[in-house]
Amino acid sequence: MKIAILPGDGIGPEIVAQAVKVLNVLGESFELETAPVGGAGYAAHGHPLPEATLALAKAADAVLFGAVGDYQYDNLERSLRPEQAILGLRKQLGLFANLRPAILYPELAGASTLKPEVVSGLDILIIRELTGDIYFGQPRGVRECPDGPFKGQREGFDTMRYAEGEIRRIAHVAFQAAQKRDKRLTSVDKANVLETFQFWKDIVIDVHKEYPDVALEHMYVDNAAMQLVRAPKKFDVIVTGNMFGDILSDAAAMLTGSIGMLPSASLDANNKGLYEPSHGSAPDIAGKGIANPLATILSAAMMLRFSLNKPEQADRIENAVKAVLAQGLRTADIYEAGTTKVGTEEMGNAVVKAL
Amino acid sequence: MKIAILPGDGIGPEIVAQAVKVLNVLGESFELETAPVGGAGYAAHGHPLPEATLALAKAADAVLFGAVGDYQYDNLERSLRPEQAILGLRKQLGLFANLRPAILYPELAGASTLKPEVVSGLDILIIRELTGDIYFGQPRGVRECPDGPFKGQREGFDTMRYAEGEIRRIAHVAFQAAQKRDKRLTSVDKANVLETFQFWKDIVIDVHKEYPDVALEHMYVDNAAMQLVRAPKKFDVIVTGNMFGDILSDAAAMLTGSIGMLPSASLDANNKGLYEPSHGSAPDIAGKGIANPLATILSAAMMLRFSLNKPEQADRIENAVKAVLAQGLRTADIYEAGTTKVGTEEMGNAVVKAL
Ligand SMILES: CC(C)[C@H](C(=O)O)[C@@H](O)C(=O)O
Ligand SMILES: CC(C)[C@H](C(=O)O)[C@@H](O)C(=O)O
Repeated sequence: MKIAILPGDGIGPEIVAQAVKVLNVLGESFELETAPVGGAGYAAHGHPLPEATLALAKAADAVLFGAVGDYQYDNLERSLRPEQAILGLRKQLGLFANLRPAILYPELAGASTLKPEVVSGLDILIIRELTGDIYFGQPRGVRECPDGPFKGQREGFDTMRYAEGEIRRIAHVAFQAAQKRDKRLTSVDKANVLETFQFWKDIVIDVHKEYPDVALEHMYVDNAAMQLVRAPKKFDVIVTGNMFGDILSDAAAMLTGSIGMLPSASLDANNKGLYEPSHGSAPDIAGKGIANPLATILSAAMMLRFSLNKPEQADRIENAVKAVLAQGLRTADIYEAGTTKVGTEEMGNAVVKAL
Repeated sequence: MKIAILPGDGIGPEIVAQAVKVLNVLGESFELETAPVGGAGYAAHGHPLPEATLALAKAADAVLFGAVGDYQYDNLERSLRPEQAILGLRKQLGLFANLRPAILYPELAGASTLKPEVVSGLDILIIRELTGDIYFGQPRGVRECPDGPFKGQREGFDTMRYAEGEIRRIAHVAFQAAQKRDKRLTSVDKANVLETFQFWKDIVIDVHKEYPDVALEHMYVDNAAMQLVRAPKKFDVIVTGNMFGDILSDAAAMLTGSIGMLPSASLDANNKGLYEPSHGSAPDIAGKGIANPLATILSAAMMLRFSLNKPEQADRIENAVKAVLAQGLRTADIYEAGTTKVGTEEMGNAVVKAL
């Protein structure tokens, strides 16, 4: 089995190196191949998603992705900026289902800005549609405003859209994920204002007929943002569109206070996937050896479970991570008095040892 | 001066009645005229925003609005549902600037789900553009998908758009509000993905030239949702579009844990405005006499300050509200052991007495 390793920018290379170390001690015969992406792709080949990188990702059985973005690429024109790499990979690989667990490890309850009783034991799964919505809808651009009080001025515009089949397939992923958990699904929309999301809601209701064992509720996105702050533990699985999912999944991750711990999976229709930590490239701490590699290591575990069909290896890694937390090892981002502060490399080594 | 009183549905009539009581004891000669809106408008005249109600709102110097929405209207077709009233009023009255303070009163610090050190003393102002964006953009609807892998299927779609002049005027409101506060403005966008918000960002940067005394920062909406949870006190004024503002202002309100305390103003180009509590119509507790009237009373204070040019009367009301909190009076939503639980009417009477 072939795994494409795309470390990217900032802390990406450091944290991916630890995940690779973990993969290498599992005793499996994976073929790992590395390629530059994001700013590193631009630096090497003049494009954030070089052709050879895209070809490798397409040929591989799974992709392990670090993070992209660094100060020196901030002023490039948009089509060359690092984040185009991740948008391009999602679209070109058809990775329509983004799974982002927001889990609060008992040992890290203090890291949250929320009161312990509100978040302790938090375990929700956000499923974000990833290849549709206003992220990719056409037409878009800057044009002359065609009507209304601002007619004739310049205006920026974008198109939000979801086709029936796009909604159906993400709804199936969400209902099936809920079946494996507490059997409760919250579909987040803005059906009171947006045609796209009234349509979304109608289709989700229709797909629900095939999953009578799952309890479905509908919630407006503004209310969902409030309920995540007020009573996040009331959620089990949340499904929503690309734009709302971008916002809500980051808010949910931050509830835990330990976004450095949270993995993510982006899957296509055949469970091929791209796996990346939920956090970004953190260029301010890059190269210092202090970044938390656990989200990336846990992303590798998700990869073993969803794309490589090695659930026991995934369990092993997840248990090893729990073990190092129980040992009191902490990188700087999750450090608290009474625990032992370690660097990126030490943390990776500790996980390897616990395996 | 004429004030249109639109109580609406659910707890709307009860809470607006308390604000009216407060307005009546100020010793000013306001002319108050009441009209039905939302579900009540539909029940009385077959439309959530009856013509006579709209005419009254247009003729008045300011509008005091309760809340709309109740279970019995949930299954009406969208164009007749209660929330169309508020969308219609915003658009028809040109109320493009929504000001939503998120303030945590020291006495209520315990009500937040966030740790006291993260939110105590919170005082941020969210300015949401209210008549543009994907809320009103055309075309929108359900059509046959014109291209791509889902070609020929049905799809829901909407148009996001902002014209230059629309962005300029809300940016001016925001910079001027920041000048009266801590002189820091965060413009929230998604310029890395959306053309509309790259354009938004460019225009905000241009308007900034007229306000060199204000520090401007730009933040992606997903990051803003995270920072509101992580370190909300770092913000001073936030400005954003209609859709992002809907989500972020509700999240920010919930940070305080006391959304029953938060007023809002929606202003046109001449500071005529509609004033309403940030919370909804709460039909589950309607008629029980337990709703918190303070957000509505504080909305009346905002009305006196922004539209009726009576800042001293606004101060009087705000001080009276602080006084009743200091006396330990609390409605059920903000009740804590050691304080005195009161109903809607008692709370209104206490504010009147404190005046
Ligand atoms: C970098 C950006 C384009 C991306 C997104 O908006 O999807 C990021 O925020 C994410 O959530 O992966
Ligand atoms: C009721 C709804 C249409 C409205 C909105 O989305 O603007 C509400 O959520 C608000 O924020 O006032």
